[in-house]
Amino acid sequence: MENAFSDRITDVPKSFIREILKVTIDKSIISFAGGLPNREFFPVRGLQKAAHDVFEEAGHEILQYTNSEGYPELRQFIADRYRQKDGLDIPVEDILITTGSQQGLDLLGKIFLNKGDDLIIEEPGYLGAIQAFSLYRPRFSPVPVHEGGMDTTALAGVLRERQPKLLYTVTNFQNPSGISYTNENRHAVADLMQGRTCLIIQDDPYGDLRFTGYRKISFKQLLPDNTVLLGSFSKTVAPALRLGWLVAPRPIMEKIVVAKQAADLHTDYLAQRILHRFLLDNDLDTHIASIIRQYGQQKEAMINAIKTYFPANVQCTNPEGGMFLWVTLPEGASSMQLFEMAIAKKVAFVPGTPFYVDRKDSNTLRLNFSCSDESTIVEGIKRLGDSINQLVDN
Amino acid sequence: MENAFSDRITDVPKSFIREILKVTIDKSIISFAGGLPNREFFPVRGLQKAAHDVFEEAGHEILQYTNSEGYPELRQFIADRYRQKDGLDIPVEDILITTGSQQGLDLLGKIFLNKGDDLIIEEPGYLGAIQAFSLYRPRFSPVPVHEGGMDTTALAGVLRERQPKLLYTVTNFQNPSGISYTNENRHAVADLMQGRTCLIIQDDPYGDLRFTGYRKISFKQLLPDNTVLLGSFSKTVAPALRLGWLVAPRPIMEKIVVAKQAADLHTDYLAQRILHRFLLDNDLDTHIASIIRQYGQQKEAMINAIKTYFPANVQCTNPEGGMFLWVTLPEGASSMQLFEMAIAKKVAFVPGTPFYVDRKDSNTLRLNFSCSDESTIVEGIKRLGDSINQLVDN
Repeated sequence: MENAFSDRITDVPKSFIREILKVTIDKSIISFAGGLPNREFFPVRGLQKAAHDVFEEAGHEILQYTNSEGYPELRQFIADRYRQKDGLDIPVEDILITTGSQQGLDLLGKIFLNKGDDLIIEEPGYLGAIQAFSLYRPRFSPVPVHEGGMDTTALAGVLRERQPKLLYTVTNFQNPSGISYTNENRHAVADLMQGRTCLIIQDDPYGDLRFTGYRKISFKQLLPDNTVLLGSFSKTVAPALRLGWLVAPRPIMEKIVVAKQAADLHTDYLAQRILHRFLLDNDLDTHIASIIRQYGQQKEAMINAIKTYFPANVQCTNPEGGMFLWVTLPEGASSMQLFEMAIAKKVAFVPGTPFYVDRKDSNTLRLNFSCSDESTIVEGIKRLGDSINQLVDN
Repeated sequence: MENAFSDRITDVPKSFIREILKVTIDKSIISFAGGLPNREFFPVRGLQKAAHDVFEEAGHEILQYTNSEGYPELRQFIADRYRQKDGLDIPVEDILITTGSQQGLDLLGKIFLNKGDDLIIEEPGYLGAIQAFSLYRPRFSPVPVHEGGMDTTALAGVLRERQPKLLYTVTNFQNPSGISYTNENRHAVADLMQGRTCLIIQDDPYGDLRFTGYRKISFKQLLPDNTVLLGSFSKTVAPALRLGWLVAPRPIMEKIVVAKQAADLHTDYLAQRILHRFLLDNDLDTHIASIIRQYGQQKEAMINAIKTYFPANVQCTNPEGGMFLWVTLPEGASSMQLFEMAIAKKVAFVPGTPFYVDRKDSNTLRLNFSCSDESTIVEGIKRLGDSINQLVDN
């Protein structure tokens, strides 16, 4: 069947991270490679009780087919939270429950992208978005991000030369880099986007996991008609349930619902009801506070260990939240080569390469700090520092 | 944003059934329009206990991200069942858990169809498949099906003129028509497909719901390298969990996994674990036997009522299983017009039109018999008979 495949799938490479994670199955390896939330914080008892209770209350109903948009009361919870956290007034009809926020990316690609359409992606950018959009064969326009947000000079340059349909952003504690957009940067980006037909996709899986600083303005406030929000319960409750959401203006939502029906009819309704019950009976912010406390300490431990063990000419970001930080080696150093050396010392990370749409190697790497305790972090960074010294000395 | 949408979504009409189902929300209407399994048979207690038990046994594990292919032991259960029921020896690696079998259709469209590629679809055919495939903009070649299976003369004609990439079939108790392919018909179809690069998609959501007759041979036995199987727990356990599966030869599975990752990373793992626990602790065939008994009686009631109340020149199929039967009015009669008249008498069905890829009206209609008790069925068919007499007399 080899020659029968569609052009879109033939173009997509096998997941690089998948291959890397295979290496890290070895339990003796200290892995900063994963992108997982820390399982210690999964509310096992709370979800178990919620499951029991929804079966008691509505056993037959929660097992039947339901509407494609998702459980109205769960969508109401999400709307209430936007009001409370961001001062946004979002009607329930503008919210759709997705099978993880990953599905939101696929649906948006599906309803917007013709082959060759221009799409702005952050550089470095979220790998899952690159993969999802790649299937619709856009032309990627990468725009660099750094501490403080998107490079607006580069963005202005792209907007002068191209007519992008979509601008994909992870404005808080970005995956992979950990950077956040300042309010000034958000305003500057919005000013450049004003009056265009380009849609801003603001993907915010980590926004609630803020250790320091204050909550920033949403593009939905700045450009309400041209912004789609993606959100997720994967990092605040649990990822296995695959519960995310998408907020879109009415004309876009109509098309999204058609694509959603064709994709999976609706997202697991039992899971929606269990989660909603859990959210009624437990305070999400109290739960999140305990996650933040530990992730924040682990991030500090990693930053401090990097200061101690990495050569002075290696840079790293200092995220205000989330799960990742980003390391930049001296110009010309290969993070792919470093990966081989680090594995020999039994420490793993993800080389920066797959987070760019157009590179074969890079001097950057992503480190995850959510899944290792502080002493493991110190030991892992020490080993990684040794590997970097070895690489740079060569 | 109107002009910014992709060509593929602009081409897809709004769901017709969705609009019809809105009419039937009125509780005083007897509805044969839905496509739902009967909620009385949802194993509420069994799934509640399974949920409790998996949280006890593996609470943290079942809430974490997992692999895209799905829970190996659930896939093993599916493999064992194929061995037991069909004598098929399918390796676990060839099975992927999908977010409902609907997702299987989307993934197959995604990895196979370029715009304009030829695709054979049954006429009438499953609406969800027409919708899912439409997004990839194929050229549909409808081939009629009738009692006994696919029209092989018409199939041979299409194969002479076109180079289809996919042949989509629902071989048992088809949605919408209720027809099944005989063994002879399966062999005849397979003979025509032999030696071609065209892939047969055998979608079998209803196969286990057989009231009479015997299990038929699978295309997977006839053309193993060119057959993809889709299956679902929606009609045998419960649809809300959105748990289906896809069986594909290795080279196809590799591409499917890439598309699956991009679509939703993986299917709800909590749901997979709950279902697997339920299947370990309960005998699925015993459960299915109780469903079959009732659906079979309801189908008989509907067939008998049709004989009593419909004019003699109206035909209907007599399914050996499943949830639907198919009515053909005299030539030239409009099922859309009948729908309006029937709603006035407070009985609903789905006109045949949306099950064809190219018609604005038809003299056919789909009746669901899984969700109404026998006395309701008799009353509803009586009213529908009145409406048909009224229509035909006009």
